[in-house]
This record gives sequence, C-alpha cells and structure tokens, in this order.
Amino acid sequence: MLLRLSTLFVRTLREDPADAEVASHRLLVRAGYIRRAAPGIYTWLPLGLRVLAKVEAVVREEMAAAGAQEVHFPALLPREPYEATGRWTEYGPNLFRLRDRRGGDYLLAPTHEEMFTLLVKDLYSSYKDLPLTLFQIQTKYRDEARPRAGLIRGREFVMKDAYSFDVDEAGLEASYAAQRAAYQRVFTRLGLEHVVVAATSGAMGGSRSEEFLYPTSIGEDTFVRSPGGYAANVEAVTTVVPPALDWSDAPAAHVEDTPGTPTIESLVALANERFPRPDRAWTAADTLKNVVVAVVAPTGEREVLVVGLPGDREVDLKRLEAGVAPAEVETAGDADFAAHPELVKGYIGPGALGPNAPVAEGAERTAVRYLLDPRVVPGTRWITGADAPGRHVFDLVAGRDFTADGTVEAAEVRAGDEAPDGSGPLELARGIEIGHIFQLGRKYAQALGLTVLDQNGKAVTVTMGSYGIGVTRAVAALAEGNHDEKGLAWPAHVAPAHVHVVATGKDASVLEAAEALALELSGRGVEVLLDDRPKVSPGVKFADAELFGIPLVVVVGRGLADGLVEVRPRTGGDAEQVPVAEAADRVAARVARLLAG
Amino acid sequence: MLLRLSTLFVRTLREDPADAEVASHRLLVRAGYIRRAAPGIYTWLPLGLRVLAKVEAVVREEMAAAGAQEVHFPALLPREPYEATGRWTEYGPNLFRLRDRRGGDYLLAPTHEEMFTLLVKDLYSSYKDLPLTLFQIQTKYRDEARPRAGLIRGREFVMKDAYSFDVDEAGLEASYAAQRAAYQRVFTRLGLEHVVVAATSGAMGGSRSEEFLYPTSIGEDTFVRSPGGYAANVEAVTTVVPPALDWSDAPAAHVEDTPGTPTIESLVALANERFPRPDRAWTAADTLKNVVVAVVAPTGEREVLVVGLPGDREVDLKRLEAGVAPAEVETAGDADFAAHPELVKGYIGPGALGPNAPVAEGAERTAVRYLLDPRVVPGTRWITGADAPGRHVFDLVAGRDFTADGTVEAAEVRAGDEAPDGSGPLELARGIEIGHIFQLGRKYAQALGLTVLDQNGKAVTVTMGSYGIGVTRAVAALAEGNHDEKGLAWPAHVAPAHVHVVATGKDASVLEAAEALALELSGRGVEVLLDDRPKVSPGVKFADAELFGIPLVVVVGRGLADGLVEVRPRTGGDAEQVPVAEAADRVAARVARLLAG
Repeated sequence: MLLRLSTLFVRTLREDPADAEVASHRLLVRAGYIRRAAPGIYTWLPLGLRVLAKVEAVVREEMAAAGAQEVHFPALLPREPYEATGRWTEYGPNLFRLRDRRGGDYLLAPTHEEMFTLLVKDLYSSYKDLPLTLFQIQTKYRDEARPRAGLIRGREFVMKDAYSFDVDEAGLEASYAAQRAAYQRVFTRLGLEHVVVAATSGAMGGSRSEEFLYPTSIGEDTFVRSPGGYAANVEAVTTVVPPALDWSDAPAAHVEDTPGTPTIESLVALANERFPRPDRAWTAADTLKNVVVAVVAPTGEREVLVVGLPGDREVDLKRLEAGVAPAEVETAGDADFAAHPELVKGYIGPGALGPNAPVAEGAERTAVRYLLDPRVVPGTRWITGADAPGRHVFDLVAGRDFTADGTVEAAEVRAGDEAPDGSGPLELARGIEIGHIFQLGRKYAQALGLTVLDQNGKAVTVTMGSYGIGVTRAVAALAEGNHDEKGLAWPAHVAPAHVHVVATGKDASVLEAAEALALELSGRGVEVLLDDRPKVSPGVKFADAELFGIPLVVVVGRGLADGLVEVRPRTGGDAEQVPVAEAADRVAARVARLLAG
Repeated sequence: MLLRLSTLFVRTLREDPADAEVASHRLLVRAGYIRRAAPGIYTWLPLGLRVLAKVEAVVREEMAAAGAQEVHFPALLPREPYEATGRWTEYGPNLFRLRDRRGGDYLLAPTHEEMFTLLVKDLYSSYKDLPLTLFQIQTKYRDEARPRAGLIRGREFVMKDAYSFDVDEAGLEASYAAQRAAYQRVFTRLGLEHVVVAATSGAMGGSRSEEFLYPTSIGEDTFVRSPGGYAANVEAVTTVVPPALDWSDAPAAHVEDTPGTPTIESLVALANERFPRPDRAWTAADTLKNVVVAVVAPTGEREVLVVGLPGDREVDLKRLEAGVAPAEVETAGDADFAAHPELVKGYIGPGALGPNAPVAEGAERTAVRYLLDPRVVPGTRWITGADAPGRHVFDLVAGRDFTADGTVEAAEVRAGDEAPDGSGPLELARGIEIGHIFQLGRKYAQALGLTVLDQNGKAVTVTMGSYGIGVTRAVAALAEGNHDEKGLAWPAHVAPAHVHVVATGKDASVLEAAEALALELSGRGVEVLLDDRPKVSPGVKFADAELFGIPLVVVVGRGLADGLVEVRPRTGGDAEQVPVAEAADRVAARVARLLAG
C-alpha cells in the first residue's frame, strides 16, 4: 500500500477549526481525516477512513472470536416494533422520525434491539437454537440536543451493536461474560486504556449494565473508583445508608423566626448563635434542603417533584435523571411554582410535601411528590424550611415528624464518599464511553413475543443482552490518547500507514530515492505514505508529518549525499541515520516490531 | 473460514415468500440470505452479508486500480446544498425528507453530487490538484413509489458512487473513460454479463450518460440493440426523422362525418371505403393520434399536454417522461378534460391545440401545449380528429394546415425500427440497471461555486462526472444469473463459501470425518460451510445445499464405509467418488480452478 501525497485527497489546516473544543476533533479535522457535513455529522476522508476500517477490523475479528455472527440491518426502520416496546415515545426528541410517501412512520435507528428480537423470532423456535449472539457494524442516528466534540458526540455515527439470546439467566450470564471479555480484548488490541464501571440501564431497560470508559479529563462521563476496586459511573453509585437513629431523646420540633438567612451558610451561623446544640455545632449537613425540579416524560407530561437532601450536597441532575429514566429532569420554573403555591421559595419544608401535606376533607391528595436522599434515615434531626417566609423549623426528626414518598439517588457523589461495597473512599474521574453492555432480560422478548420451546415443549420467553461499541467514538478516543501539541501520533496497528517517507530538497535524485524506498517497502507489505509533493518546503512537509501522525518517519533529503536517510519515530525516540542500502530492511524490521508490540 | 450449519444463523424456507415475483428475491429469501424489514428495505443475514462483502471488495479493488480514492459521506444531509442545485424539489416524493429537533430540514441522500462538490471546493483550489476521482460505498435512500423485486428496486440500498473533477472536457472524457473501463472490469470479474447502452441523464443533469445493463427478461429497463453495434436505453433512442415532403400536389383538407369509428382500425376501414387514396390504401400510420397527458412538476404543478403521433404507435410514458424530466407524466383524468372543453375526447385534432388554437381577440394564449412525434414532418398527410364528435379531418398536411409547439420522443420504440446511427434494425430486450455513468459537466460545480485557478490564475468552473454501481442490486443480478429451479448457484468468487461439506447418516464416524475434512480445507484457506446438523435428514440437507448454492458440494456419508466421499459441483458436472485421504487435496485443487476462472 502506497499513498502519494502529491495526489492524495487531503489538505492540512494550520488553524484549529472554530468549533473544536477537544484535541481529537481539532487534530482529526486539521490533519484532513474528517470534515464536518452538518452539526454532529462527519465525512471521512481517505486517511480517516483507513483508521476507521482498521478499528472496525479489530472489532469484527474479536466478535467472530467470541462466537458472534455478523448480520446487517437497515438504518431506516418502521415505527411499529419501536411502538411495541414503547421506545418510539421514550426516545423523545433524540429520535429522528420521518414519514414515507404513503404517510407511514419511520425512524432512523439509534439501536436495534427490536429488529434483532423480531429476526430471531422469525428464524428460531427451539431452545436448541440457543445460545445465539449476533452483531453488526452499522450507522446509527441520534438527534443529540448538543452534538459536540467532533466524533465523540455525533448525530450520525458508526456503532458495533451485538445482541445475545438465551433461554435462562445462566445463559445470559455466559453470553454477557463472553462479550465483556471480547470488549476487553478489543480495547487492549486497540491500545485504548479502559475502565469497566457499573452503570445504569437508562432507556434501554434491563438489570445489570456496565460501561467501558476511556479515562480522560475531557470525557463527558464522570465515574468513581475505590482503592478496593469498586468502579461505577457516577449515575450508578448508591449511597451508603447510615443506620436509623434512636429519636427518644430528641427535642420536639420548634419553628423559629430566622431573619437574614438567605443561604445555608447564614442559616447555620444563626442556628449556632441562637439555637446551639449542646453536643456539637450545627453544620450545613444538618440542614435539609428541598430542591424543586420538573420531571418531563417522553410524552411531554410534566410533574413537579421535590428532592430533600442534606444541605451540604447539591442535586446532580444526571444522577436524578438516571433514577427517573426515560423521563428527563429540568430545574423548576416560575410556572411550576405558580402551580404549587404551597412551595414557599427558600422556605420549603417537608410539611407541605408528599405524605406530610395537609389534605382538605373529601379532597383528593394532590400534594407534590417528595423523595428523600437515602441519608435522611429515621431519627436524623434537621433544620429545614417551615413553609413560611423568614421561618425555619428546628429539630425536625425524620420518621417522627415527617416521611416521604420514597428515596432517590440524586445527591452529588463527592471524592472521599465511601464506596457502596465498603472498599474505601471514592475518587472521581472523567471518561469517554466507548462501550456499554447490558443484561436486558426479557423486556424486548416479552414486548415482541420472542419465545422458544424448552425441553418439555413449553414456550419460554428468551432473555437477552445488548452490547455496543462506539466505533467512530473509539477513533476519537484513540486520537485523544495519541497526540501531542503538534499533531496526531497513531499506534502502528491503527495508523493510516506504517511509514511516512518524506522527500525533501529539489534534487531529482532525492525524489527518485524516496520513491524507490517507498516502492520497496510497500512491496514488502509495509503501508507507506510518501510525501512526493514537488514544490512544498521541508518545513511544511515536517509539520504535516507531525499532524498526520504516522508512527515512523523516514526523511530522504540532505543526508542522501552521504548515502544516508533518517529514520525517526513520530514520538518517543531518537532519529537514526541509516545507509540507503539498508533502509528498507531496517524500516521493515522496525515496523514489524511496532506492529508486534 | 469454517461455518457450521449447526450454529449458523440461517433458516431455509420451503415455500416462496408471497411478495416475491422474481427468482433472486424468492431464492435469496428462501435460502436465508436476506429478510424483509419493511417494503423495499432488507436485512442481510450472515450468508448474504458474505456475498455482499465479496462484491464490495471487487468494486473497491477496481476503483482503487482506476485511481479513485475512497471516502465516506453521511447519509443524513442538510437541505441547503440540495436546495442550491434544485434537487431538493426536483426529487419530488422520491426523496426521504425529515426535520431535526431544531426544525432544520434534512434528507436521506439518494446520491451525493452536492456533497462531493462542496468537499472538493473545501479542499482544492488549483488546476494542479486535478484530475481527481473520489468514491464511496455507502447506503442510499430513495422513496420508490413501487419498491419491488427484492433487492432490485429497494428504498434503502448500497451503492458505489464515484465523482470525477476535471478542469476541461478532455479531462472529463479521460476520467469518464477510466470509470467506464473500471466498470467493465468489475462486471467481468463478477461474472455479470452486461450491455453498455446510451442513456438519458434524467434528474441528474449533464450531457452524455451510459447505463450498464444486466440483460434479463425480468429487468425493468428496456433497451435496444442493432446489428451494427448501436445500443441504447429505450428512453434514449432518437427517431430517424424522414425527409420533409413536397405538399404542392396534396388535396385540400376536408372534414367528414365518420360515424361508427371508435377505433383507429374502424376509422382506417371507413377511410379506405369512402375516401380511398389513389396511390395506396390508408393505414393506421396515416392517422394522427393526439394523446392527452398530464405533466406533473416536482413542485406538484400540473400541466395538460397533447402529444401527436402516428396512429400505429402507442405513447411510451417512460420515454415521454425522460423528455420532460424531472417532471413526471400521468395519463389525463376527467378533471383535466373538464378544464379543457376544447379537447373533444376521441376527436382531438391539431386545430384546437398549441399554435393552431383560435385565440379570442385581446385574450392571452391559453391553448394546451402540443408536441409532435418527429415523424410528423412537414408535408405528411393525416387523417385526424376534427374537434367535433363523429367528425374527422382528411388530408390535413403538417406544415401547411397545422404546426406544433415542438417535437418530443414519446412514441414507443418497436423491434425493426431503424437505429438512429443507421446501423440497422433495432431489436428490443430487457435488463437490470447495474451501473450508470454520467458526464455531468458544470451543473453542480456552477450551482455550488466549485472553481479552481487555471495556469493563468483565472478561476474556471470544474467539470464533473458521476458514476454509480448498484452494489446490492448487483447481488440480485448475480442471483438472477446463477440459479436453477432448486436454488442458487453462485460463482466461486462471490459465493459465501467455496465448499459445502454435507455429513449424512447417524454414525459418529461420519461427522468426525466431515469435521476433519472441513478443518483440513479451512486450514488451507478454503472457505467451508459444514452441514453438521445432527438430526437433519440427508434429504433436507441436500435440498438446503441446492438452495444455498455453494459451488462445490462434498458428501461425507454412506461411501465412507468404502473410504470414499463424493465431490460434485452444484451445477453442470458429474459427481466424483474420491478416497478420503485424497479428498482435501482434490477439493482444494478444484476450488483453486474455480477461483481462477
């Protein structure tokens, strides 16, 4: 394989594109690997397409090695199957919907659970046909509210999606484990560092789910790790619930005027001054903050909800959202408060909420739903709003003085929080989701009627798993992990070429020697990018080589007079002067070492 | 490569699918290669996907050999570029259109001229950058009014589309010739018989265009051939125009009562009886038939049009449509006649039409547009309607007594018609369009502002070509050309496997021997499909082998007791008994011969 820059369809840019916030986006565009066609929608140029094809090949090989069989579904799909599982609605505005010329409803598929389920139902009927895992590498669509970061959050992207079909839980566990192991091999072969974290299932449904994250500070996902090996997406972290407390000695609740306490800090200061605790000072963690949010169902239905949590923590909207999925959460607006005059802004207390709210005789309960942070266990004593301007209630005891409609994981997770499995304090980090695996269970099979006959001739509903790799996103993650300030720096096995031969100088002999070396190398199976542009300066050629990021650079130029060419790695190594006659051997050997390791 | 039928995701069907009209559709579904997901939208199962991948590989290799560079565009595209070229509207209901969450207009691309043009504009600026040919293998969308014949006319399909960019006509000719030659190599390598025919450009615009047709009676396209080598899509055939005649001796036109002549046949009979010509009998070819149609623009605007042609020919709506593209043609309805009371059904003559129609003083011309078949040259004498019930006009002379708004190629082409280049009488045949190449010229570059600086630093508009291969359609054409009543019969180089090893009989030794042979063969690079299903009868296995159509079948069964296996081609050859010990060698050698050609 020999690509000549004199004819290759590529142009490098010296300036960063205006909309590029992250290195992968910036450099993939500048080096001429991709170009934006519309927001979140990219075109692949020849160099980019070569990287994408290599990543796809690794995924394909490991899927086959894991026993998954490749199929290919359409992207344009009819509404009905997605209607049957509820996802036509649940996906809300993230789904691209369209009508055909006869008025039939169609969608551009974001994932294919429904279609795979129906296909297996179409073909299979017996437990003997299972287990089965199918996969495809296919273009997916999601109408993201904020497409960003180039390939990292796009609206048209390539995904490997796989689906497993088993008769029982043990089978699902085995299929899940096989895919999980295949994912680790894929990312290891790609040289992509990855952390496997517990995750929530979101709109996908199902029980167990894990994400594969590529750790990077520019990642959109926050995850936690403990010294003892616990790892989870922050949405999946469960709070360590303290034991309930004995409230027999707690003083009775008392409402107090608390002028001049617009903040929790000022409220705590006033409390310590005017109502000091005998045992210790009040802290923000002793206040019960009641946060009003609106939960918007995919149908558009809007519900006002109050979340009660210790005053030293913020509500994490993404964590809350994971708890109410597929609904979305917004901060409450003026209209929400207007609809609920019992919510006294700044002074909301449990007394007006959920089961504590007074109900007029004969009236139906219409109270706002009230959910508590799991830390608010029975017996805990709180300072909180008294549902009247300028007034707070003190020594309000959970379980004794108020209850709620339930608990919710909505409080922010903080570094130092205890891991739920007791494996130590959590640290927080960020990452890019490059894979996500789900034990779906029977949600889709049930909705679409996928059963098989078991050994006794009885119909049993099949249990499923679903497994995704963001293929185009993996290319972005590779670029994030392999670049410096000057450009990309690909690992050899995913680079668009192995060797970049740069001919510098105006002498015809230089170009001839470079051409001869490039041909010799490509004849031996080495993939070569040859910079044979006749009127481009060495400076521009070197700058482009640094942008392109081919792992090995061979400079054929000044040294040629002394019978030498220069061989240097794109990163992390010294330049070596090599006699022309030995160059092909030496370079081919170095490429072989790079590919091996 | 070894596929085991015991686990392969495939089920064969004994019955034809209800909607399948053609062999490729019927057999690809029955053999488990594809499944319908929605009208004109198909899912590829593992065996089908292997064939598709092999066809794609051939296309990709030949594109690269022709110097075309591979890129990959999105399928989901913004409206603006298609608006700039007019195609957003011109494509009419054939275009899938949709809106994103912000109300932006998008489409699913049917072809990508606009995007390639813009990308080249984005990257290139000098004549030195050209010539350039880019291609992609990509999923395309077209909302066909009547998706049919399985993969032959689908709504989501895979196409190879290439685009060439040149500074001048000579460059375009060369790029066009290179793609044309590449197409011939592609189809030859695929073993697809093909006829290259002159074609019309339709909605694509541009000047020269040729289609590659796979000849088959089930094809949707009609084409013509002459003994002298002329070949054209029937839409592109031009009529051999006879010389104008001297009308000085022609009698004056006279209107006659013609009762009881509802058909041309009865009119001709009456003419010969009551108004005989002295020189010869009247024939249907002496009558001038005026056919009313409605031309519907992509905007929905409807125009009534009358086509005048010799009474012995029908109007070919597809030919007429090619002449008015991108508009579509419908037969006229009652509302059309009601809007034009001057059109007396059955007795329409030139007198009420086009330039012949009377115009009231001071009124604007509102006459129906009138187009004539090119055979109606000045001096020809006609019997035609007199615009009054029961009356016809005789000896109406073109040029003397009436004219028209122009000519149109709308009359059917018939076997025996003279080729336009004088190369002899035409014969008609049918085919499937598997490729189409266009010299677009400057239409797209002009609309989108793609210019480069020439040697003198002057901006010149680039001239383009566009080149498509229906990749999924080629798979259908291959199936049409390679099957019998029992199933598919693939050529070795596109078959999903080279050898189908069938283990028959219940003896464990049979399965072991079959397995050993399959492993031995796959170890040598032979692609093997192994029927290792333990409880399936030999009859079912043989029937499936005939459906699947793997070129070489090896039966490991009864003969094993005598140390023999049977090797037989799927079609056209005798079964051979081969000693087990030699089987791998013999089979591998036969595969090598099949692949060689």
